[in-house]
Amino acid sequence: MLHEVGLDDIRPIAIGAGILGTGGGGNPYLGSLQLRNEIARRGPQKIINPMHLDDDTRIVIVGGIGAPTVSIEKLSEGTEMLRAMRRLEAHLGYPFDAVAIAEIGGSNSMHPMIAGLQAGLPTIDSDGMGRAFPEIQMSSFLFDGAVFAAPLAMVDAGDNAIVIPQAATNIWAERMARNIAVSMGARAGLAGFVMTGAQLKATGIHYTLTLAHRLGLRVIRAQRDRDDVPQVAAEMLSGRVVFRGKISDVERRTTKGFARGTVTVQSFVGDDELRIDFQNEFLIAYHNGSVVATVPDLICIVTDETGEPVSTEMLRYGVRVAVLTVPAPQKLKTEAALRFVGPRAFGYDVAFRPLPGESIGIEPPTLELQTNQ
Amino acid sequence: MLHEVGLDDIRPIAIGAGILGTGGGGNPYLGSLQLRNEIARRGPQKIINPMHLDDDTRIVIVGGIGAPTVSIEKLSEGTEMLRAMRRLEAHLGYPFDAVAIAEIGGSNSMHPMIAGLQAGLPTIDSDGMGRAFPEIQMSSFLFDGAVFAAPLAMVDAGDNAIVIPQAATNIWAERMARNIAVSMGARAGLAGFVMTGAQLKATGIHYTLTLAHRLGLRVIRAQRDRDDVPQVAAEMLSGRVVFRGKISDVERRTTKGFARGTVTVQSFVGDDELRIDFQNEFLIAYHNGSVVATVPDLICIVTDETGEPVSTEMLRYGVRVAVLTVPAPQKLKTEAALRFVGPRAFGYDVAFRPLPGESIGIEPPTLELQTNQ
Repeated sequence: MLHEVGLDDIRPIAIGAGILGTGGGGNPYLGSLQLRNEIARRGPQKIINPMHLDDDTRIVIVGGIGAPTVSIEKLSEGTEMLRAMRRLEAHLGYPFDAVAIAEIGGSNSMHPMIAGLQAGLPTIDSDGMGRAFPEIQMSSFLFDGAVFAAPLAMVDAGDNAIVIPQAATNIWAERMARNIAVSMGARAGLAGFVMTGAQLKATGIHYTLTLAHRLGLRVIRAQRDRDDVPQVAAEMLSGRVVFRGKISDVERRTTKGFARGTVTVQSFVGDDELRIDFQNEFLIAYHNGSVVATVPDLICIVTDETGEPVSTEMLRYGVRVAVLTVPAPQKLKTEAALRFVGPRAFGYDVAFRPLPGESIGIEPPTLELQTNQ
Repeated sequence: MLHEVGLDDIRPIAIGAGILGTGGGGNPYLGSLQLRNEIARRGPQKIINPMHLDDDTRIVIVGGIGAPTVSIEKLSEGTEMLRAMRRLEAHLGYPFDAVAIAEIGGSNSMHPMIAGLQAGLPTIDSDGMGRAFPEIQMSSFLFDGAVFAAPLAMVDAGDNAIVIPQAATNIWAERMARNIAVSMGARAGLAGFVMTGAQLKATGIHYTLTLAHRLGLRVIRAQRDRDDVPQVAAEMLSGRVVFRGKISDVERRTTKGFARGTVTVQSFVGDDELRIDFQNEFLIAYHNGSVVATVPDLICIVTDETGEPVSTEMLRYGVRVAVLTVPAPQKLKTEAALRFVGPRAFGYDVAFRPLPGESIGIEPPTLELQTNQ
């Protein structure tokens, strides 16, 4: 398991979290620059094992909320997550002990380290999605009803701040937070999901920062060795490469605080077509019109030659890509979870048919087996 | 000046505030029912003279925010303003001493009395508009920059609550609060504009609750005496009846948290036409295409026979109406004020040409002269 994150770990994490982000989670390159800046100033960030947490450790989740398409145009100020944390601490009247990860995808894998460094707190190697999802209620931290998204705090790059002391449900929290993010220019820093160590141990998807790091290292090695990088990445995640081709169409709109649209990939030879709908993240893939994968299973796009992640906001005509499908972590596939992250939660009248194979996610035994990767 | 508001005062205030509300401020009938309920349970509400406030009295403003068209479909729970106040007190860490009025229009003239009764606090006979306006920054309390809309709190009829601890500007506060109101179903209770007695004395438009009450009493007397009620109301406000006719068209949409649209009135005889644009409140009136009045001057619609106020959400084809124009209070006509409440602030490329005549608003000397009304 990762025990700290230094400068050399940033690029592997950016690649790994970029792939796990299924198109979303915020632009990993921009997150990398911020994280690099903080580590250069303050030294490596301490990462702690979720299973070693005290039961009463006070934990906060931080992350960016908004549309990834906006994040590359409207840059962040750099202390959004810290300021959101401080607003929430002021509201609660006590300080936090550690920061956990909202989603391991994209730059949201890095914000908890950036905020941790700024606040002098460790980051916990656990997240609530094992990937990225577009909405707040889509988090394993919340599925069993003991942890709530609110109270939460949001800030923008300027002087605007909002606290939601109470929301009727987590879906209400999402609805309000999304409109607030829109008010803030479709981009804001969020701190919330206040929980104890005991609650995180029970609900988190653990060791996903380590997984992202390992995945990135494996991709970098495969790039150097001129291996089939997409294939190597898929294997490491127990997934497979379902399609290779050229992006032939991108229909995209930034609406109601999300980047929504459809990307079409044409096979290099023949008339095969893969079409993927997205809402910040890739949600459903159709191969010549038939569903081949849906949320919560992961649909990841990487560049065909180098296996670098291609996120929603970077999709463009002509890019040669490989599409990976990867079975989701078990915690996203329970009945309770599927109500929030299954295809019907996104408006698709399709049953969830889990991809075959073992779920991603590394638990301590697996970790030990993989230490020589 | 009014010293308390009992059951018999409700109907006069509803009429007066309905007229002063220039179409907005929330449905006065529904506000009346709530106020009646509270007074019946708890006794009359104490009204205090703004000029008698101690300089360090801690004052809060409460009011409904949203679209009037929604308020008559989605009824309130009844304690929205009190709960918003309590959220704000919890955020600030101290209790308030008195409640002032955001806007004297419609039901927002009554909410500060309802909340005052529920909290055991007096209501101050002063508001920030001397009428109603659709947006937060359009308040005399804010024009000189010493009082801010945020921190503010908002709640809905259910369990959702939001605090805005800080906004970059009052226009940012409006932008965020409006989107939050939309999230809450285009209707929410708001508490904010925290200020001291000294600040209220300097910035408020005083004795407008008394003015609304007097205006209502005068209308009721004119109704009983079968006088020309619209004419009587106009005279009392130093305004005039500019048009009489039948509503021939209403174009209306509830959008982005506002009721927006245009109402057209055809004269009873001849081809004259008066057209009025509204955004919750009536903003600009065109007589056969020429501007006859604009914000901040008041454009009021009343029923032609009985002089009862006709608000935005009650506009409908065939109603016989009289249209009044009334000069705005002085505090809305300064250069600083017009940046927020002049026609250009609403997107009309028209200079503000104040209506002739003395401004409404009653100050103590006038009050004494009018005590036998």
